[in-house]
Amino acid sequence: LAIIQEYVPLEIDAVPSGGQVFDWTIPKEWRIRDAYLLGPDGRKYADFKRSNLSVVNYSEPVDTRIGLTELKGHLHSIPSLPGAIPYVTSYYSRYWGFCLPHRTLEQMPDGEYHAYIDSEFVDGNLNYGHYVLSGETSQEVLLSSYLCHPSLANNELSGPLVLLLLYRRIVGWKRRRFTYRFILCPETIGSITYLAQHGATLKKNVISGLVLTCLGGRGSLLSYKMSRMGTSLIDKTVLHGKRHGMVDVRVRPFTPTGGSDERQYCSPGFNLPVGQMARAVYGEYDGYHNSLDTKDFMDLSTLIDSANQLEGVLQALEYAGYFINLKPYGEVQLGRRNLYPNINSDDTRSLSTDQKMDNRTQLNNILMILNYCDGNHSMIDIAEMCGISVQKIAPFVDLLEHEKLLTLQVQ
Amino acid sequence: LAIIQEYVPLEIDAVPSGGQVFDWTIPKEWRIRDAYLLGPDGRKYADFKRSNLSVVNYSEPVDTRIGLTELKGHLHSIPSLPGAIPYVTSYYSRYWGFCLPHRTLEQMPDGEYHAYIDSEFVDGNLNYGHYVLSGETSQEVLLSSYLCHPSLANNELSGPLVLLLLYRRIVGWKRRRFTYRFILCPETIGSITYLAQHGATLKKNVISGLVLTCLGGRGSLLSYKMSRMGTSLIDKTVLHGKRHGMVDVRVRPFTPTGGSDERQYCSPGFNLPVGQMARAVYGEYDGYHNSLDTKDFMDLSTLIDSANQLEGVLQALEYAGYFINLKPYGEVQLGRRNLYPNINSDDTRSLSTDQKMDNRTQLNNILMILNYCDGNHSMIDIAEMCGISVQKIAPFVDLLEHEKLLTLQVQ
Amino acid sequence: LAIIQEYVPLEIDAVPSGGQVFDWTIPKEWRIRDAYLLGPDGRKYADFKRSNLSVVNYSEPVDTRIGLTELKGHLHSIPSLPGAIPYVTSYYSRYWGFCLPHRTLEQMPDGEYHAYIDSEFVDGNLNYGHYVLSGETSQEVLLSSYLCHPSLANNELSGPLVLLLLYRRIVGWKRRRFTYRFILCPETIGSITYLAQHGATLKKNVISGLVLTCLGGRGSLLSYKMSRMGTSLIDKTVLHGKRHGMVDVRVRPFTPTGGSDERQYCSPGFNLPVGQMARAVYGEYDGYHNSLDTKDFMDLSTLIDSANQLEGVLQALEYAGYFINLKPYGEVQLGRRNLYPNINSDDTRSLSTDQKMDNRTQLNNILMILNYCDGNHSMIDIAEMCGISVQKIAPFVDLLEHEKLLTLQVQ
Repeated sequence: LAIIQEYVPLEIDAVPSGGQVFDWTIPKEWRIRDAYLLGPDGRKYADFKRSNLSVVNYSEPVDTRIGLTELKGHLHSIPSLPGAIPYVTSYYSRYWGFCLPHRTLEQMPDGEYHAYIDSEFVDGNLNYGHYVLSGETSQEVLLSSYLCHPSLANNELSGPLVLLLLYRRIVGWKRRRFTYRFILCPETIGSITYLAQHGATLKKNVISGLVLTCLGGRGSLLSYKMSRMGTSLIDKTVLHGKRHGMVDVRVRPFTPTGGSDERQYCSPGFNLPVGQMARAVYGEYDGYHNSLDTKDFMDLSTLIDSANQLEGVLQALEYAGYFINLKPYGEVQLGRRNLYPNINSDDTRSLSTDQKMDNRTQLNNILMILNYCDGNHSMIDIAEMCGISVQKIAPFVDLLEHEKLLTLQVQ
Repeated sequence: LAIIQEYVPLEIDAVPSGGQVFDWTIPKEWRIRDAYLLGPDGRKYADFKRSNLSVVNYSEPVDTRIGLTELKGHLHSIPSLPGAIPYVTSYYSRYWGFCLPHRTLEQMPDGEYHAYIDSEFVDGNLNYGHYVLSGETSQEVLLSSYLCHPSLANNELSGPLVLLLLYRRIVGWKRRRFTYRFILCPETIGSITYLAQHGATLKKNVISGLVLTCLGGRGSLLSYKMSRMGTSLIDKTVLHGKRHGMVDVRVRPFTPTGGSDERQYCSPGFNLPVGQMARAVYGEYDGYHNSLDTKDFMDLSTLIDSANQLEGVLQALEYAGYFINLKPYGEVQLGRRNLYPNINSDDTRSLSTDQKMDNRTQLNNILMILNYCDGNHSMIDIAEMCGISVQKIAPFVDLLEHEKLLTLQVQ
Repeated sequence: LAIIQEYVPLEIDAVPSGGQVFDWTIPKEWRIRDAYLLGPDGRKYADFKRSNLSVVNYSEPVDTRIGLTELKGHLHSIPSLPGAIPYVTSYYSRYWGFCLPHRTLEQMPDGEYHAYIDSEFVDGNLNYGHYVLSGETSQEVLLSSYLCHPSLANNELSGPLVLLLLYRRIVGWKRRRFTYRFILCPETIGSITYLAQHGATLKKNVISGLVLTCLGGRGSLLSYKMSRMGTSLIDKTVLHGKRHGMVDVRVRPFTPTGGSDERQYCSPGFNLPVGQMARAVYGEYDGYHNSLDTKDFMDLSTLIDSANQLEGVLQALEYAGYFINLKPYGEVQLGRRNLYPNINSDDTRSLSTDQKMDNRTQLNNILMILNYCDGNHSMIDIAEMCGISVQKIAPFVDLLEHEKLLTLQVQ
């Protein structure tokens, strides 16, 4: 969090161990200093100093001599990936264990082993970082990622890095209709904690959001998991963007049975309009939750492409919402605002066919926007009715806002 | 009613002749002692003592000599079923008449006949029986059949008998979420009378119901007529049960143009969520409304099969409704309730593929139930989203209720 | 307006120049006395006295000598229709100009021309005419057309003439469930003015309406443009009428990008249930907005056919709405009202198969109407459920109204 704070002005909050957050209790902090598994042959079969994946996360301390047979109840490997150290945790049931490559496990000789874990559980804190970047309205776009998987790249670092890139892009935009909220917390219990402390504000303000996870991975498309409601602005924007070639994305339905923090944001008591954006999706690649999930697998240029595409989605989202025609009684007098051809004639001498079509199409877009901005049609809906992308309709929205004929509806 | 009272603790109520029930008036009671049609040859061509179908029901008294030509205006037969005596009534227009096999009618010689009907109309009562079997909530399932067709089996006795069987099954269940209301009344005017007296209670409490009619008939499937609203819990449960092979049923749309007492329960002022269950459906078999509708046609083993299948439908209905997640903010901490694998690992050594799938599927079902029990999704909807039957999801509902995480929504 | 007043008792109202009507200002009146374009050869290339299309409507006065090159910036013709004088206006930008056949334009010699327009702008009035023909309820059907295109027939006179014919038909009907409002105003600013003065009443009372435009044109079908809401009674009636062969019509979707005064009635602040009926539709024929749009093109017998068909649509509309069963609790006792076969028998001797079907179908229609007249189903919906046209269901509506079992719902 401190490193990311150098790039995003995160406020870092702490909730002490023992604190109650909805159905959950903040656990004690786990301090780990060293851990190894010394064989009868003097070889270290697992060594925390070499890989912090070598110890089951949240292991209780142990310092014992133990035979191989009994020890095996404390060992974790992946037979199908014999070179990988798995990532294993045991947060809510007291346990100790080691993780090691299956290839190494198969070489372990019989005999007595020294299992040593120098850990302790202390009254500490759950920390999260967040920052609210104000826009023209208090309506919020939530961007959330997590910090909790040690040493993993795609399934850990990719989310915070894209969040950081998006912050720097958005802060540079000429205008922001929406307020942007950036959140970094440990997965699951972190977002539950965040909701316990800020849920009422989120429920009031959030009009769209994205959980960012697994956004690296060479050669893969972006992959969007719909929000639980399935019809929120972010859902409409991604589907529209896909249809109009603005974003290269596959779409997954919402499910509460797996995923990231959208499971919390979309729990039935909140049901926030928050989807999830991924790329090399959790569970779908070999390196998932093991030591093969490296910076090399993640690929920085893919991260940057993810950020580029997501910036485009968010820019489209700025125009996606419900705007209101401020002069809804009869048509607006476009003529005196220079928005209508003042000579009403079918005389085509002075215009080429292309130009004429273009002028007429522009006028039609203006008439469509003014007629359908009634609070029941999103600008995505209107763009679809016009047969164009929301990107192409955006200049007309700007123009009509400038003429004080249109305003964003604050929900 | 008195005979059925030996098996179901019916309360029997009486509404006197002349009583006003909505748009209808309770008619006088019809007492019939004897009726016959004596031919010029001394033969009795119709004889109430041999079949009570022989006289048009609600015939006024007559004792007259009459020629064959004039008499024929008072005779009813079925040319296409020359051996059957039809069932004919004339409740609301004064009339007398005889019913006889067409074969017999064709043998009647010319000459003078003696038409004799010893009937009278007296101030009496309309009687109905009903019983309310309490459950955990005041939400009611209505089960209704009728008693009014003399001497008919499938189109009379089958409904009350299946109602009786269902009562005895339901009273033996370990638990009843719903309250069950059993009704036996004369068709049409009986259910209108019942609604006049109990309609407000029904409108408040009934969440589903079935009119039981024509439930015998060898070799035929059950046949469900949708409720008028078409989306009630009983409609959803029967359609879901059909889809998942829980009940062997064909489905008919609702119509007010024919049928049984669902026409009254589904009249627009009540519009109760009441469907109709039949088997050898009225109007679809030769014996309909005539003397061929015998106990032999009805077939007792078919009645029992009907009761078995309907018990299954009602058991599924107990789980079909709208449940509420009592901890809807963020996910529930399943780990400390032993509902979640506590070691979060993809280590598969200790589990066969089948077992792993099974555990994961069970966890998924729990997560789906908790996420979607928001008052907008019935358990039928959730079961369909899980791709399983409500029977298979029922144990998870019980478990989560036991853990005080779930409760039935009282509407 | 004065001529039409001889046939329809129009009230004629005036709104003075400078008056504000929503986003618009009533312009000054344009008085034109003479206008011509005199060539160097003494020939009049355009002459208001010969055709009032020869001058650009709302031209400012001019009296100047001008060379051909400069003059061409003030000339309008249609190269693809070299014999036609176009209809050109410039209401909101000061300008002068002449309109002439392209063939004539091409013959104009170089040299100095005398451009003369004797016009002036005076404080005057915008006039409109309207009449409200009362019916049994205050619910209104709006019929609107326009008076503003000089010398055009199909795209001007056809609408007011059909409106006049419809007035004379409707005033002769035996009964009118609805109140009918007839409006004649200049297009666009006239209907905006009308809405500024009567919009609140219209919003409260109008349940359906039609803008009448371009209703002549030999050999063409009627063409209906849906109302903006798309589900209003007039939309349902026209679609139903087309399906059942009651009206020979093609259907266009609503759009605010072109059309007539429905653009104002359907502006988002009003969103009235008003469609548009045309035939030889604006923009779809050669004579559109030029001197080819003559009485010969318009064709009187086509106008009369349009009126005949629209009268049928309006008669169907009288039965299309939401009726309410006044005895909705249980079925109505049809027997004592002679609406039900009193002898309940399947005895078919006395009826041919056709007659029996007919009686049964009639009874079914009555049962369907009574069951579904619950305020949620229009009579169009019920007719569709019965598989017949609203014309065929109308006698049953009359019968049940007469029996005080049914009444039109006042919204």
